[in-house]
Amino acid sequence: MNRNDQQAYDRGTSLFSPDGRIYQVEYAREAVKRGAPSLGIRTAEGVVLAAQRRTSSPLMEGESIEKLHKLDDFLGAASAGHVADARRLIDGARTAAQRNRLRYGEPLGVETLTKTLSDEIQETTQYGGTRPFGAALLIAGMDDSGSEPRLYQTDPSGAPQEWRAVAIGSGRDDIQEFLESNWSEDLSIDDGVEIAVRSLLESNDDLDAESVTVATVTTDGYRVVSDDEIADVIDEYGSAADADDTEDDA
Amino acid sequence: MNRNDQQAYDRGTSLFSPDGRIYQVEYAREAVKRGAPSLGIRTAEGVVLAAQRRTSSPLMEGESIEKLHKLDDFLGAASAGHVADARRLIDGARTAAQRNRLRYGEPLGVETLTKTLSDEIQETTQYGGTRPFGAALLIAGMDDSGSEPRLYQTDPSGAPQEWRAVAIGSGRDDIQEFLESNWSEDLSIDDGVEIAVRSLLESNDDLDAESVTVATVTTDGYRVVSDDEIADVIDEYGSAADADDTEDDA
Amino acid sequence: MNRNDQQAYDRGTSLFSPDGRIYQVEYAREAVKRGAPSLGIRTAEGVVLAAQRRTSSPLMEGESIEKLHKLDDFLGAASAGHVADARRLIDGARTAAQRNRLRYGEPLGVETLTKTLSDEIQETTQYGGTRPFGAALLIAGMDDSGSEPRLYQTDPSGAPQEWRAVAIGSGRDDIQEFLESNWSEDLSIDDGVEIAVRSLLESNDDLDAESVTVATVTTDGYRVVSDDEIADVIDEYGSAADADDTEDDA
Amino acid sequence: MNRNDQQAYDRGTSLFSPDGRIYQVEYAREAVKRGAPSLGIRTAEGVVLAAQRRTSSPLMEGESIEKLHKLDDFLGAASAGHVADARRLIDGARTAAQRNRLRYGEPLGVETLTKTLSDEIQETTQYGGTRPFGAALLIAGMDDSGSEPRLYQTDPSGAPQEWRAVAIGSGRDDIQEFLESNWSEDLSIDDGVEIAVRSLLESNDDLDAESVTVATVTTDGYRVVSDDEIADVIDEYGSAADADDTEDDA
Amino acid sequence: MNRNDQQAYDRGTSLFSPDGRIYQVEYAREAVKRGAPSLGIRTAEGVVLAAQRRTSSPLMEGESIEKLHKLDDFLGAASAGHVADARRLIDGARTAAQRNRLRYGEPLGVETLTKTLSDEIQETTQYGGTRPFGAALLIAGMDDSGSEPRLYQTDPSGAPQEWRAVAIGSGRDDIQEFLESNWSEDLSIDDGVEIAVRSLLESNDDLDAESVTVATVTTDGYRVVSDDEIADVIDEYGSAADADDTEDDA
Amino acid sequence: MNRNDQQAYDRGTSLFSPDGRIYQVEYAREAVKRGAPSLGIRTAEGVVLAAQRRTSSPLMEGESIEKLHKLDDFLGAASAGHVADARRLIDGARTAAQRNRLRYGEPLGVETLTKTLSDEIQETTQYGGTRPFGAALLIAGMDDSGSEPRLYQTDPSGAPQEWRAVAIGSGRDDIQEFLESNWSEDLSIDDGVEIAVRSLLESNDDLDAESVTVATVTTDGYRVVSDDEIADVIDEYGSAADADDTEDDA
Amino acid sequence: MNRNDQQAYDRGTSLFSPDGRIYQVEYAREAVKRGAPSLGIRTAEGVVLAAQRRTSSPLMEGESIEKLHKLDDFLGAASAGHVADARRLIDGARTAAQRNRLRYGEPLGVETLTKTLSDEIQETTQYGGTRPFGAALLIAGMDDSGSEPRLYQTDPSGAPQEWRAVAIGSGRDDIQEFLESNWSEDLSIDDGVEIAVRSLLESNDDLDAESVTVATVTTDGYRVVSDDEIADVIDEYGSAADADDTEDDA
Repeated sequence: MNRNDQQAYDRGTSLFSPDGRIYQVEYAREAVKRGAPSLGIRTAEGVVLAAQRRTSSPLMEGESIEKLHKLDDFLGAASAGHVADARRLIDGARTAAQRNRLRYGEPLGVETLTKTLSDEIQETTQYGGTRPFGAALLIAGMDDSGSEPRLYQTDPSGAPQEWRAVAIGSGRDDIQEFLESNWSEDLSIDDGVEIAVRSLLESNDDLDAESVTVATVTTDGYRVVSDDEIADVIDEYGSAADADDTEDDA
Repeated sequence: MNRNDQQAYDRGTSLFSPDGRIYQVEYAREAVKRGAPSLGIRTAEGVVLAAQRRTSSPLMEGESIEKLHKLDDFLGAASAGHVADARRLIDGARTAAQRNRLRYGEPLGVETLTKTLSDEIQETTQYGGTRPFGAALLIAGMDDSGSEPRLYQTDPSGAPQEWRAVAIGSGRDDIQEFLESNWSEDLSIDDGVEIAVRSLLESNDDLDAESVTVATVTTDGYRVVSDDEIADVIDEYGSAADADDTEDDA
Repeated sequence: MNRNDQQAYDRGTSLFSPDGRIYQVEYAREAVKRGAPSLGIRTAEGVVLAAQRRTSSPLMEGESIEKLHKLDDFLGAASAGHVADARRLIDGARTAAQRNRLRYGEPLGVETLTKTLSDEIQETTQYGGTRPFGAALLIAGMDDSGSEPRLYQTDPSGAPQEWRAVAIGSGRDDIQEFLESNWSEDLSIDDGVEIAVRSLLESNDDLDAESVTVATVTTDGYRVVSDDEIADVIDEYGSAADADDTEDDA
Repeated sequence: MNRNDQQAYDRGTSLFSPDGRIYQVEYAREAVKRGAPSLGIRTAEGVVLAAQRRTSSPLMEGESIEKLHKLDDFLGAASAGHVADARRLIDGARTAAQRNRLRYGEPLGVETLTKTLSDEIQETTQYGGTRPFGAALLIAGMDDSGSEPRLYQTDPSGAPQEWRAVAIGSGRDDIQEFLESNWSEDLSIDDGVEIAVRSLLESNDDLDAESVTVATVTTDGYRVVSDDEIADVIDEYGSAADADDTEDDA
Repeated sequence: MNRNDQQAYDRGTSLFSPDGRIYQVEYAREAVKRGAPSLGIRTAEGVVLAAQRRTSSPLMEGESIEKLHKLDDFLGAASAGHVADARRLIDGARTAAQRNRLRYGEPLGVETLTKTLSDEIQETTQYGGTRPFGAALLIAGMDDSGSEPRLYQTDPSGAPQEWRAVAIGSGRDDIQEFLESNWSEDLSIDDGVEIAVRSLLESNDDLDAESVTVATVTTDGYRVVSDDEIADVIDEYGSAADADDTEDDA
Repeated sequence: MNRNDQQAYDRGTSLFSPDGRIYQVEYAREAVKRGAPSLGIRTAEGVVLAAQRRTSSPLMEGESIEKLHKLDDFLGAASAGHVADARRLIDGARTAAQRNRLRYGEPLGVETLTKTLSDEIQETTQYGGTRPFGAALLIAGMDDSGSEPRLYQTDPSGAPQEWRAVAIGSGRDDIQEFLESNWSEDLSIDDGVEIAVRSLLESNDDLDAESVTVATVTTDGYRVVSDDEIADVIDEYGSAADADDTEDDA
Repeated sequence: MNRNDQQAYDRGTSLFSPDGRIYQVEYAREAVKRGAPSLGIRTAEGVVLAAQRRTSSPLMEGESIEKLHKLDDFLGAASAGHVADARRLIDGARTAAQRNRLRYGEPLGVETLTKTLSDEIQETTQYGGTRPFGAALLIAGMDDSGSEPRLYQTDPSGAPQEWRAVAIGSGRDDIQEFLESNWSEDLSIDDGVEIAVRSLLESNDDLDAESVTVATVTTDGYRVVSDDEIADVIDEYGSAADADDTEDDA
């Protein structure tokens, strides 16, 4: 379909194109690809979440670019794409987790949370007057009373998927390929952290420890990995340098 | 009608074209055709539902691509098309089944459920501000106190149809032709499972057991067919290989 | 008026064209004409309703293509056009009939029911944000305590009409001409059934008994005519064959 | 103003054209002119309403094409234009008449009723999201305790007018001219009936008694004139034949 | 600004053109100019309102073309432009006058009434979804316990103005010029009536008494001037003839 | 940006142009410039408000063109631009002043009032479905228990500004330049009146006393300056003549 | 993407472009850049906020151009861009701060406030019918019981960022570069004030003390820096002159 024909159908979420596509959803996926990459790795001991942070100036506090988010004691998320949209989804996720604790006295499951968010996302793709969310999330957690690591992804269409290991955002293809080559069922959580950092180096070999953020969700709960641990991996595998490319899709 | 004329009428569900068509509904059917195929077969003993699952990476958990859905003890569904839309319809179906049990203390009939969903679908095709559902469902169940197998289909126009055996999604024509040649009134449920898998092989001879999912609804209720049973059929009739083509229309 | 000028006015039900037409209503009539034909015949003893059913596959249950509908003990309807729209109108008709029984303890009259539906249809043709119904109904019943056969038609404009005998849907002109030649005031209900089947053969001489459905509304209530009775007429007057043309306008 | 310029302003009831016209209202008047003619004649003894009925088939019940409507004991109406729109206005008129009786215990005056309807019509011409009514009404009645014959007209703009005698619908100009030549203050009600039928013959000399309907509103209330009386006038002044031209604007 | 540029801004009341104009308001003023003229003259003894009535047929009751309206004991109005719009404004004025009497037990002042109407008119010019009123009113009354004659005008923009003497509608410029030459502070009410009729003759020297309507608001209240009085002036100053030009802008 | 590009962004208040402008707000400022000028001068003793009035006919009551408005005992306003819009803002200002007195028992401050109006104005510039106000106001008052003269301006963007002396409307630049040359901190209120009238003469040397209106807000409250005082200044500095140019932007 | 293609997607906040951008948000950032610059500097002792004020006339009260805003005892903000939009956000910030005090009896944290505002901003970028806010804010405050200086920025996309030092508005790049060269962790609050003024001089060396406004938030609360202090810095580093360029983006 050429550009003119495409333009006839891409100006609304409440429209199908003649070949059955919803262009606004596909464009929202492009917004995800504009963001710095995030990834998740399920290991035998828990889930690793990692992300690259882009800062537009050395005076920006890198930590305020929130790519990893603690949702509940045993629930975390990584985001990529339009920052403000991701924040809104994260807010929804936190609210859902809290509400579940209050109502049922137990933590919200990873799959249930993912599907709740996906329902909200789907609605923005079927009714007029709103655009889809230009962000994707990775939801990580420990199900079954904290014994079963799970990793899910939401995307702008509202379709949830479970993954062993997955990357979103810019450079996604390189990172995913690296993950496919290096993932195995019996990874330890430390293996996972190492692979996570190395996979980010795969798509950008100029990373320094400050521009990478890593967290783990295990039976010990949500833990932020220290800069030193990250630096160790970078020192071993990467050639560190300052990040120099920043956009509002962080 | 040429493309320019068609474009005058295809940008809304609340518009007829001069020849009495509703293009957005027809485009939604294209969305169904983009999805991996699903099918249903009514046998003398119950109904078989089967579907192909497409995964975009070996790291994706194939089981999270939900194509077959248990709706109630004696009710199941298969979906094809836009995943998020199908999920929404399935949610509606489950809610309707639960409500019926609560209100009337008895299971919801297959025909009644199909018509309830069809009503909801029709509304998206008559009023502005929303697009049709880009998904079709096959509803399978045992009516009359679990003694009568029934198989229905919903489509994006909101018209329900009852079938002896039917396929939806990509490769639908080949599969349907195979079904027409192989279906008979007195099939056993095992016959049905075999025909179901073989019909999927008909449109894609590279299937492996993991990319096929089969379930049955009989007097014993909703049962997921084991990978081994599926593998047996594939071993006999197909040439297994990895699926390599994935889209968000699963 | 040429096509370009017409297109200026045909994109909304809340618009008149310069010559005082409402194009969306006329296009909705085209949707009716796309459907397989239905017809009604008022006889001295009651009303005959008949319809052709189109199936897209021998595996489809023809009976699930509902063209004739029992509305109440002495009320029936035949539909043509967009299936999902017709279902919606039929649902409205049944609800109206039930409500009348509950409120007033007596059956709803044919004319009153037709006008209630016509009011609902008219609203879709005057206000924006919705399209007209792409379906027409024939309403048949026994008024005056079941002693007076009546036959009405609704159309997409919302104008009700009473008929002695009338056809809607594809091939309408041929069937209507046949009815005009063969109808008389003193037909028996059996005469009516015969004329009904013969008139369908008039527009399609390949009909078999399965693709024809006939019902009668008499002092005995709503009765579905058996396949055997239909087959007898076809055997006498037609050259039976499989229907081979199916659309979602059934 | 040429066609292109006109099209810039004729797609909404909430728009004036540069020369201060509301095109949708003018197009709605065209819808009135498409309908078969109706007329009213005020005589010294009461008001005569008459209308031509068009049937599209000899099997249609001419009486179901309602052009004359009893609104209350001493109130009647004739309509022309879009049938479904006219029905809606007539429903509103009947409701207003009933409500007046219930609230105030007295019949609704002709002028008050006309203005109530005109208010409703005007609203459809000023606010977006709806089209004007494509129908005009003649309201006839006896005011002042049944002693004063009155005849009013509503039109699609919502402007009420009082008339001594007036025609609406197709052939309006010929009929009005005949009325202007034949009307006088001291007509008897029988004179009025004769002039009414003759004026219809003026625009269509092929009328037969069945396609003409006449009613009177006098101190005796609303009375439908018998076919015989009509036939007498046609026999004297016209050359009867079958009507052969039917549209949904009846 | 050429026509193409103008058309970019004239399709909504919620739009300014680049030079700060609201075209729909200006087009509504054209609707006023299409109407037959009305005028008001403030004299030392009270206010004279006068208007020309256009009838489209000798069978129309001229008095049903209401151009002058009694609003309250000491309040009257004259209208020009779109008849149905004027009726709506007049209804609003009467309601406001009644409400004031009920709430405060005293008559509504001329200025207050004009401003109330102007507020309502302004709203139609700022918000989308409605067109402005295509009518202007002259409001005449006796303020300060009936001792002070006042004459106000509303226009489609919602700006109120007080006048000594003013004309609206077609031929407004000629009439206004005549008023400017003949008005003086110390006119008697009879002088005012004479000048009013003569000013209408100024723009149309074929007027007869029936097509002119005059009313006065003085300490004696609202009074309709008799045809004889009007005829006397026409006899003296005009050359009477039948009006022959009628539109729905009366 | 050329005209075509500009037109892509100037049809809504809820749109930014690529260079970050809101054209409808800028066009609304043009509406202000079309109006006759108004101005305000803060003196040591209070604030002077002055305005030119345009009348379209010698029969119009100039005083009904309200350019200066008493809002409360120590609050006044001058307006320029679209008359009906200004009236609406003035109504809002009066209501706010009254409400403040009722709720808090004290007069509303000048700054608070200006900001309240500016909030209302800003909303019309951010949400769709309405146009901005085509009017600007000068708000004058005595704050701090009547001891501190203050002068504020609102504009169509909703940004409030405090001024020592300022002009709005047509000829604004000439007047403002005159004010900049002649304003000083220690002006008496009489000086202010003189400068106000002279500044109007600056942009239009044909003014007469009737077309100029002046008011002061001092510790004595809101006072309308007499025509004689104005005439004295005009006699000394201007060459009086009749105003001859009138528009609905007064 | 060329201009024509861009224009296909830049007319709504509820639209993505094919490359995943939301043009209206980017245009709103242009509105921020049109405004005079504001900046914030976090020091060891507190946060400095500074801004340039543009006045369009020497008669305008510069102080009424509010660029710095006290929000609460230990909370301040600087704004740039569309003045009326900034005011609205500031109003929201003050309300949030007050509400927090009332509900929880403690001051609102800087980060929480920023995120509350960002949520509100994000909503204007996802739903139709409104434009984004054309303004950015810097939020400064002392967290943790007044001991921890924090500086945040909101932007039109709704993404919050924390900064050590940051500039917004016109000349942002020059100022930011100056800040990057001169900022260090251990600045005193006086150092911060000096750097703030010097950075403004960097982008505009004609500044005088009146057109610069500076405030600090320290353990002593919100304090406005005196003109004398500002003048001292300008005297030392700048060449003062009158500002001569004013727009409504202040």
